Amino acid sequence: MDIYARLQELGLELPKAPVPVASYVVAKRSGDVVYASGQTGTVQGQLQHKGKLGRDVSILEGQESARLSVLNCLAAIESVIGDLNNIAEVVRLTGFVASAEGFGEQPAVIEGASRLLLDLFGEKGQHARSAIGVAELPFGAPVEVELIVRVDEGAN
Amino acid sequence: MDIYARLQELGLELPKAPVPVASYVVAKRSGDVVYASGQTGTVQGQLQHKGKLGRDVSILEGQESARLSVLNCLAAIESVIGDLNNIAEVVRLTGFVASAEGFGEQPAVIEGASRLLLDLFGEKGQHARSAIGVAELPFGAPVEVELIVRVDEGAN
Amino acid sequence: MDIYARLQELGLELPKAPVPVASYVVAKRSGDVVYASGQTGTVQGQLQHKGKLGRDVSILEGQESARLSVLNCLAAIESVIGDLNNIAEVVRLTGFVASAEGFGEQPAVIEGASRLLLDLFGEKGQHARSAIGVAELPFGAPVEVELIVRVDEGAN
Repeated sequence: MDIYARLQELGLELPKAPVPVASYVVAKRSGDVVYASGQTGTVQGQLQHKGKLGRDVSILEGQESARLSVLNCLAAIESVIGDLNNIAEVVRLTGFVASAEGFGEQPAVIEGASRLLLDLFGEKGQHARSAIGVAELPFGAPVEVELIVRVDEGAN
Repeated sequence: MDIYARLQELGLELPKAPVPVASYVVAKRSGDVVYASGQTGTVQGQLQHKGKLGRDVSILEGQESARLSVLNCLAAIESVIGDLNNIAEVVRLTGFVASAEGFGEQPAVIEGASRLLLDLFGEKGQHARSAIGVAELPFGAPVEVELIVRVDEGAN
Repeated sequence: MDIYARLQELGLELPKAPVPVASYVVAKRSGDVVYASGQTGTVQGQLQHKGKLGRDVSILEGQESARLSVLNCLAAIESVIGDLNNIAEVVRLTGFVASAEGFGEQPAVIEGASRLLLDLFGEKGQHARSAIGVAELPFGAPVEVELIVRVDEGAN
């Protein structure tokens, strides 16, 4: 199924490719593997939530941040491979969650990211994952997501 | 040497493959590379230690948690490749250590994981590594380990 | 352009390959991909800065730590591939920044690392990147950098 049709079905819009804050690229292809730079839950460059889980940001808000982070990762990957239908499979997701003392539900938060990948890509969306609770994320973001995908050989 | 014989020699038992808490898989193979999802120091789903290094958990306990995390990673990888003897080499380990203020001995903790990989795999077990001190890990785990291995080409 | 000439032009000296603190290797090659173990801002084994960004260490000092971390990663990679000119491209950098409560400028800190890679490698130095704020790093380091590069096929 076409990924863009699936995005529309889910009522989602792919954002513009994120603009790197500095001297790096938003996604890098090396052979058949594409690494998306860490993305946060921004819409048009504005963080939709700020602060830490377990204190400032609810799990539902964290999941929404995780979903937005994935959309930004996909926009970044699209800017490199041109067509998201060329993704052969999602490989790995690392989710960093800004966590207040004692917060241990990182997996519930990052589930927002994983669920979206499965909803979009079906079986091809199955991925290895880590959920890590960290002290602080750029500009007060509650969630940052890194993504590795494999593209079809021969896709440019 | 057979990995299962080596596990037995070391008095270790491979756990059942971990059950993912959510919408992801415990390990993902992409080409010859297998990424294990982040694992913690559980035995039959129960964390054996909880809390932070430098406050609640001793370095010895942290090393034991790191070892258990590696066993869970290997069980996860086995569930995907079938036979751990098909591992051509361990590639990279990232060890996250829940760290109280001022705790800087993450390498000593993650040494529990690295040592076990060398004990099990010998020269093939040599790996790149990072040891990172983080705020919180899922469900209060003191240690989380991610593992990347390469399997023999042609192994299914 | 020769990387060693470029290092000299920039007034930089490649350190000796870092010595692993424990049972791992400073860099691991798997196929064409080389993973450098996490490195900190040491010179001859001594950390040049200690503590957290946003409290003990300025952004300028953090950037310098990030640069030194990259030089240590490159020395680690050189110890495995022999000649840094065999690097076909830098692929991915993950920068961990020890962050005091409320510090959100991890990208500005890790920019020190990214900038150096571009200065050294030009277009081949473009990389995906994540900047993560963490609780503590080994031995009080303010910055730790992980690097993935791809080497030219056939380079030994």
